[in-house]
Amino acid sequence: MTTWLPSLITETPQEGYDLAVKLSRYAVKLTQPDAAARDRMRPDYAEDANSLIAVSQVVATHFATVAAANGFWKDAT
Amino acid sequence: MTTWLPSLITETPQEGYDLAVKLSRYAVKLTQPDAAARDRMRPDYAEDANSLIAVSQVVATHFATVAAANGFWKDAT
Amino acid sequence: MTTWLPSLITETPQEGYDLAVKLSRYAVKLTQPDAAARDRMRPDYAEDANSLIAVSQVVATHFATVAAANGFWKDAT
Amino acid sequence: MTTWLPSLITETPQEGYDLAVKLSRYAVKLTQPDAAARDRMRPDYAEDANSLIAVSQVVATHFATVAAANGFWKDAT
Amino acid sequence: MTTWLPSLITETPQEGYDLAVKLSRYAVKLTQPDAAARDRMRPDYAEDANSLIAVSQVVATHFATVAAANGFWKDAT
Amino acid sequence: MTTWLPSLITETPQEGYDLAVKLSRYAVKLTQPDAAARDRMRPDYAEDANSLIAVSQVVATHFATVAAANGFWKDAT
Repeated sequence: MTTWLPSLITETPQEGYDLAVKLSRYAVKLTQPDAAARDRMRPDYAEDANSLIAVSQVVATHFATVAAANGFWKDAT
Repeated sequence: MTTWLPSLITETPQEGYDLAVKLSRYAVKLTQPDAAARDRMRPDYAEDANSLIAVSQVVATHFATVAAANGFWKDAT
Repeated sequence: MTTWLPSLITETPQEGYDLAVKLSRYAVKLTQPDAAARDRMRPDYAEDANSLIAVSQVVATHFATVAAANGFWKDAT
Repeated sequence: MTTWLPSLITETPQEGYDLAVKLSRYAVKLTQPDAAARDRMRPDYAEDANSLIAVSQVVATHFATVAAANGFWKDAT
Repeated sequence: MTTWLPSLITETPQEGYDLAVKLSRYAVKLTQPDAAARDRMRPDYAEDANSLIAVSQVVATHFATVAAANGFWKDAT
Repeated sequence: MTTWLPSLITETPQEGYDLAVKLSRYAVKLTQPDAAARDRMRPDYAEDANSLIAVSQVVATHFATVAAANGFWKDAT
């Protein structure tokens, strides 16, 4: 079994955002493991405004988790 | 009655993600206990981009809970 | 008036999950108090993948609350 | 101007749940102030499973806030 | 540039709720800056139960933030 | 690779709101990198009340994160 999620800690907020995107996509892969099926569906969401907004919502939820795990990468006091 | 959720604590973030998936699916099983009915519905969501995004949203919500329960598996300070 | 929610504290995560399910269903009962009407709608959601995912989302939101109220039933340090 | 929300503090979790329902409904009233229009829409959501699930989702979100504001009405240690 | 959001702190929970409504509406204004276009859409959501529930969901999410920012306006101990 | 998210810290709540909007839009760009395709979809969401509400929901989720990262920009005690 491959390790795809060793940690929630990232160096920067931007890397944390990328991790949130990865976390969002992984549940899709688990639910639809067939890569060809996922590819066929790509236009269904990449060309549909409401699907793109829904994708962004999932990323926002994961980003909240990653940000909290990293103490929000605080650089201010 | 079977114990299916003894703890929210996992060794790694990746096992926590798997637990979040399990937590997401369990509510579906409780609401539709007929396994054959659930199997019949599989193409309805596994072949539908918006359903897959919605599944990912549920996982994200549970993952937030599991991650917080594990102190976000902190490896940094 | 009946007491249906004396506490958010449960002995185990699994009982907490059951409470989250109860919390999810109660708002439906308050909004549609007619039990016969709710029964008529059962196939509308129990046979519909997207409805089942939406039910699971509500449970996830309540489970987050119950889990936090219970200090996530910590068994690790 | 009437005071409809003096506090988030309630004596019991159950009263907190009722407050969450009130908080959910108030945004609807603000957005559609015409009571007759709201009444006309009642069958649209009270007879529709997906609408009832969506109502329950809003209540869940507000209940999380009310529960946290009340320190989750802790009765355990 | 106008200051429309000087602070999340309000005197009362009720003013916090009003702020949550304001926060919900502002994203709509940013995405559709044409006031006439927004006005034309008003019946689309004010006469639609599901849209009103969705509006209430956004308010609930912002209210959680405002309430936490205000320490939930604690009046109990 | 360009740095687009150096920090979650902003001077004011209003700048935090703008950052939440930016965070919301970035996931859309990552999922649909073709700017022309995104432009073609603009009327699909900017003229649709439900899409605008969904956009506002994503912003609300990110704003919660940004606000917490900034200690809610507390000006009261």
